[in-house]
Amino acid sequence: MLKVGLLGAGRIAIVHAKAITAHPDSELVAVSDVFPENAEKLAQTFGCAVRATEDIIADPEIGAVLIATSTDTHSNLIEQAAAAGKAVLCEKPVDLSLERARACQANVEDSGKPVMIGFNRRFDPNFGALKDALNAGDVGKAELLSITSFDPAPPPVSYIKVSGGLFRDMMIHDFDMANFIMGAPPVTISAVGSSIVDPEIGAAGDVDTAVVTMTYADGKVAVIKNSRRAVYGYDQRVELLGSEGLLQAQNMLENTLVKSTIAGVTGAKPTYFFLERYMPSYAAEWSAFVDAVNGGKALPVTLDDGVAALAMAEAATRSVAEGKPINLADVG
Amino acid sequence: MLKVGLLGAGRIAIVHAKAITAHPDSELVAVSDVFPENAEKLAQTFGCAVRATEDIIADPEIGAVLIATSTDTHSNLIEQAAAAGKAVLCEKPVDLSLERARACQANVEDSGKPVMIGFNRRFDPNFGALKDALNAGDVGKAELLSITSFDPAPPPVSYIKVSGGLFRDMMIHDFDMANFIMGAPPVTISAVGSSIVDPEIGAAGDVDTAVVTMTYADGKVAVIKNSRRAVYGYDQRVELLGSEGLLQAQNMLENTLVKSTIAGVTGAKPTYFFLERYMPSYAAEWSAFVDAVNGGKALPVTLDDGVAALAMAEAATRSVAEGKPINLADVG
Amino acid sequence: MLKVGLLGAGRIAIVHAKAITAHPDSELVAVSDVFPENAEKLAQTFGCAVRATEDIIADPEIGAVLIATSTDTHSNLIEQAAAAGKAVLCEKPVDLSLERARACQANVEDSGKPVMIGFNRRFDPNFGALKDALNAGDVGKAELLSITSFDPAPPPVSYIKVSGGLFRDMMIHDFDMANFIMGAPPVTISAVGSSIVDPEIGAAGDVDTAVVTMTYADGKVAVIKNSRRAVYGYDQRVELLGSEGLLQAQNMLENTLVKSTIAGVTGAKPTYFFLERYMPSYAAEWSAFVDAVNGGKALPVTLDDGVAALAMAEAATRSVAEGKPINLADVG
Amino acid sequence: MLKVGLLGAGRIAIVHAKAITAHPDSELVAVSDVFPENAEKLAQTFGCAVRATEDIIADPEIGAVLIATSTDTHSNLIEQAAAAGKAVLCEKPVDLSLERARACQANVEDSGKPVMIGFNRRFDPNFGALKDALNAGDVGKAELLSITSFDPAPPPVSYIKVSGGLFRDMMIHDFDMANFIMGAPPVTISAVGSSIVDPEIGAAGDVDTAVVTMTYADGKVAVIKNSRRAVYGYDQRVELLGSEGLLQAQNMLENTLVKSTIAGVTGAKPTYFFLERYMPSYAAEWSAFVDAVNGGKALPVTLDDGVAALAMAEAATRSVAEGKPINLADVG
Repeated sequence: MLKVGLLGAGRIAIVHAKAITAHPDSELVAVSDVFPENAEKLAQTFGCAVRATEDIIADPEIGAVLIATSTDTHSNLIEQAAAAGKAVLCEKPVDLSLERARACQANVEDSGKPVMIGFNRRFDPNFGALKDALNAGDVGKAELLSITSFDPAPPPVSYIKVSGGLFRDMMIHDFDMANFIMGAPPVTISAVGSSIVDPEIGAAGDVDTAVVTMTYADGKVAVIKNSRRAVYGYDQRVELLGSEGLLQAQNMLENTLVKSTIAGVTGAKPTYFFLERYMPSYAAEWSAFVDAVNGGKALPVTLDDGVAALAMAEAATRSVAEGKPINLADVG
Repeated sequence: MLKVGLLGAGRIAIVHAKAITAHPDSELVAVSDVFPENAEKLAQTFGCAVRATEDIIADPEIGAVLIATSTDTHSNLIEQAAAAGKAVLCEKPVDLSLERARACQANVEDSGKPVMIGFNRRFDPNFGALKDALNAGDVGKAELLSITSFDPAPPPVSYIKVSGGLFRDMMIHDFDMANFIMGAPPVTISAVGSSIVDPEIGAAGDVDTAVVTMTYADGKVAVIKNSRRAVYGYDQRVELLGSEGLLQAQNMLENTLVKSTIAGVTGAKPTYFFLERYMPSYAAEWSAFVDAVNGGKALPVTLDDGVAALAMAEAATRSVAEGKPINLADVG
Repeated sequence: MLKVGLLGAGRIAIVHAKAITAHPDSELVAVSDVFPENAEKLAQTFGCAVRATEDIIADPEIGAVLIATSTDTHSNLIEQAAAAGKAVLCEKPVDLSLERARACQANVEDSGKPVMIGFNRRFDPNFGALKDALNAGDVGKAELLSITSFDPAPPPVSYIKVSGGLFRDMMIHDFDMANFIMGAPPVTISAVGSSIVDPEIGAAGDVDTAVVTMTYADGKVAVIKNSRRAVYGYDQRVELLGSEGLLQAQNMLENTLVKSTIAGVTGAKPTYFFLERYMPSYAAEWSAFVDAVNGGKALPVTLDDGVAALAMAEAATRSVAEGKPINLADVG
Repeated sequence: MLKVGLLGAGRIAIVHAKAITAHPDSELVAVSDVFPENAEKLAQTFGCAVRATEDIIADPEIGAVLIATSTDTHSNLIEQAAAAGKAVLCEKPVDLSLERARACQANVEDSGKPVMIGFNRRFDPNFGALKDALNAGDVGKAELLSITSFDPAPPPVSYIKVSGGLFRDMMIHDFDMANFIMGAPPVTISAVGSSIVDPEIGAAGDVDTAVVTMTYADGKVAVIKNSRRAVYGYDQRVELLGSEGLLQAQNMLENTLVKSTIAGVTGAKPTYFFLERYMPSYAAEWSAFVDAVNGGKALPVTLDDGVAALAMAEAATRSVAEGKPINLADVG
């Protein structure tokens, strides 16, 4: 039984608490949060203790910590937990600063403890089925990857200001998805973007609509499209053209009802947002983490993956600023 | 907090145990089974006591019992539990004998206790969305209902021999679905069937492929198609033509991957069987039961609904045997 | 070059005139109609002569006649044309009277001339693909056939009164489709119907909504659903469950546009009516006729097929009237 | 009646000949080709004369010429025909040289005669429905356009060498589609590409897989994906995210058959290539041309549109060569 400390008690921490308590081989023993009332509420719901972060990290009984705190604390907590001998699952991104993330990577490497970054979409059954089909050779060799990732509505501008920007906050999931599918990082990254959804987002120095094109050493090409607003719901699709066919992971829908009237043939919208769409992936992610930690096996997603995606976000950010493609090797 | 006793510890009882323990307002306190080792195993997994059925029914602390035993015990247990003042949720069918089911209905009526029959498909989100759309007037008035309900593979012939036959065992769900959607029972029922899937099923006196046509007092028509074998999975669709359009609740799929190759464009199969397809409906069913019992409100499905569906199964069985339509009023 | 005389100049005759003139191996030489102005107009559009029906039939230069006149003239014209040595393609139904149709069948048999009945749906590429897949063994042996056939709107009651009723006028296409797919006629036919769309249709002695169930000698089952009104368009679907899978020929849509908004995900409606949906099938039907006549080969659809479908319509009509299943062998 | 001379008698000329002869208000009077036997064959099929190109252009009886010759002759023939007072419909592209195309544009402007460029995809009913829905405000204001355009198989490398390259030969259709939908040209164009399908194409100096990103003055963004090989067929999709929803014009399929087996649920492939997919659009294009010429109205696509798309192809070609985005204003 893996005893787990949960750092953070916000919305995503609750998702993880469900996965931890539902898993037959893990037990949630403690939670901490900078807002004690959040920690209390989560503790009550899931039946665990409220403790200070440092206590949790210092407790030799606790084998793993799940870091679901604000982004600016991730690197420090990863380092402290790893130094204390814990297995770590940390929410993305590793850090907003690529430099700091790389320092964290170097520090943790010394500790030798497993650190996994929470790219939960790798555990989505639809994207997983795509990856499996590619691995099985169903469409030959990968040639052209397209990722469509639209949120239903933009977050408050106040959030955007501290988010690190669309590329580090939102597209970072898609950068990791590209790495997951392509099996290698790109060579060049070229990004365009605008704040056509909300000029306030532009005034805050960010974009809300962006397209990134990436080229690979062997001639493969990838394109990622992001928008902060798709009024019909959470649009999450991946499409891969291979030498022998096309793979498409399509949206999950709210239900299967189809209505035909004089107005047309209408089906349900995509599941609204990440809590609906990706809920099963969080459970599968946790299960993979437990299996790796308990079984002493390699983690399915690593801190290196987290740093790699962050470097791509950095390159995309620069590409928009400088109006030209960026070599990924020149970042950092 | 509703304290619950679970009668039966087989496959479907485990599904219910999950729902009972996951619900914030109910608590699983005891389980019984004719096979003690099954009861022990379930009790261990879900943290409850193993007790004798009569003890559970006699315990004044227990407010509700869920009957998930073999069909031949349903009527007796419903009567005993209701007499002991319990709220009851009983798996379908009420009984294989319509006469016995009606006696049970009469006996329970006197007790005044709420008895719900487990027609879980009413709580499937897709069929629920269809019913909601009909109620909202999205397609005008109902005219022609079609239900397609195919199992992936036939059960063993040994099971079929004690099942009461396809109409009482399998199509009974569809009879209830028709009543749920149409809002009234049919007037005539006409059935044809054959054992084209497996002659052994025919030798056992049953059919494995059947079509039932039903007419209603106001001119509406319904048709139900059943097959014991659809090799591609569990095919569960409902389609309703109304005066202003068509509603279709389609299959749920294993995933959203679509693969295009020279062989065609291939998507995932329907979710395999009722545990996959209807798992969310069991939780919703239990939630509705708890809400009704705790809130003192009318149950969403009643013992009367269970008897009504059984009468339709009886009529269909006779229709095949006699080669002619049966008036539902003549059954009984 | 097959020289063709066209009998009739109405809406469906125009469809055939297009097919005749577009075919490289056939030539439209003459047209006749009881309304001379219709014949004149068609002749002008397609560049042919207007002549009397008897002149056309008597002309030794004309190798084939296409009969697209009113139903009550079909049998007589078939007999006259066959007696005159013409190859014949006649619109369905052969006759409203099964007795008369059988007499026609006997008379024509003596002449030895090829007579094809215009069951154009056999030439629809979607239903053709279904039949091909069945023949190729893609889904094993056929077990349960379902045909959905809804018109967008009912015809005037004045038409219905002379139409022979829904089974002879509308469902006759579906009876032929069942024969086409199943490869054998049914043994029993059981029909229910009502006039829920329009009580005036009921007052005229007909139904507007009907379901027919058919059983076959080897245990196969078929069900046909008809409605005179599907406000969303012309709903024409065929679905076949086999021992190794399911085949579905779905609707053709007006276009491929899909619109996702807060109101849902909306696609185009089915193509509106038979002229849109089945236009390609009329050309393919004509082509098959020309190939058979010129090549001296067997016709793909025969007068026997026309009589067989009419007998099934007769049985369904009786089944509704008598409230019981009819043995097809007892019809006639 | 518009008398038409057809210049060229190859594959695409035959498509146009069908449209010209089928249209009630146009008549094909003459055809020319550098290969006289091609001209003879087309003339025989469609019933017109074979004449020399200069004769056709000089004939005062001929009101319009359709130019379907090799690309290198387009500019000259447009100028000659316009100078002779003909209305012109010329296949894309105007020229491989942007400079020459602009000279042609200037020369024709003086003549005042209508010149239409054959961007037939504007007349595809699916893309047309998308444009209509956008104009109707169904999804608010356009924000992010995606065009997927994959050929089923690459042409011979010998053809690619004289084609002007993927951007001028293939993507030029998509550049025009972007202009059609967005209603304005882009400001910047950024392209990446590789020869991952066939290294021989790369050796010939071209790419076979390319992604182009375009930005617009008001913040809109567009992305075009091209591949020379999609083994499952001709993949032609357009997708537009707007402020109030998403529009998707999806592929047309060979038929509507869906087959469900243990291997999955398989539908038909996209229609194979442009002759199948776009045949209706050629007829609609010709009809629009005739309507404009006969009605003295503005052409739906102009020579300016042809030059604009060519400039975008030029910019994309440079972008790949120089590895950076190109301002469209800097091209020329």
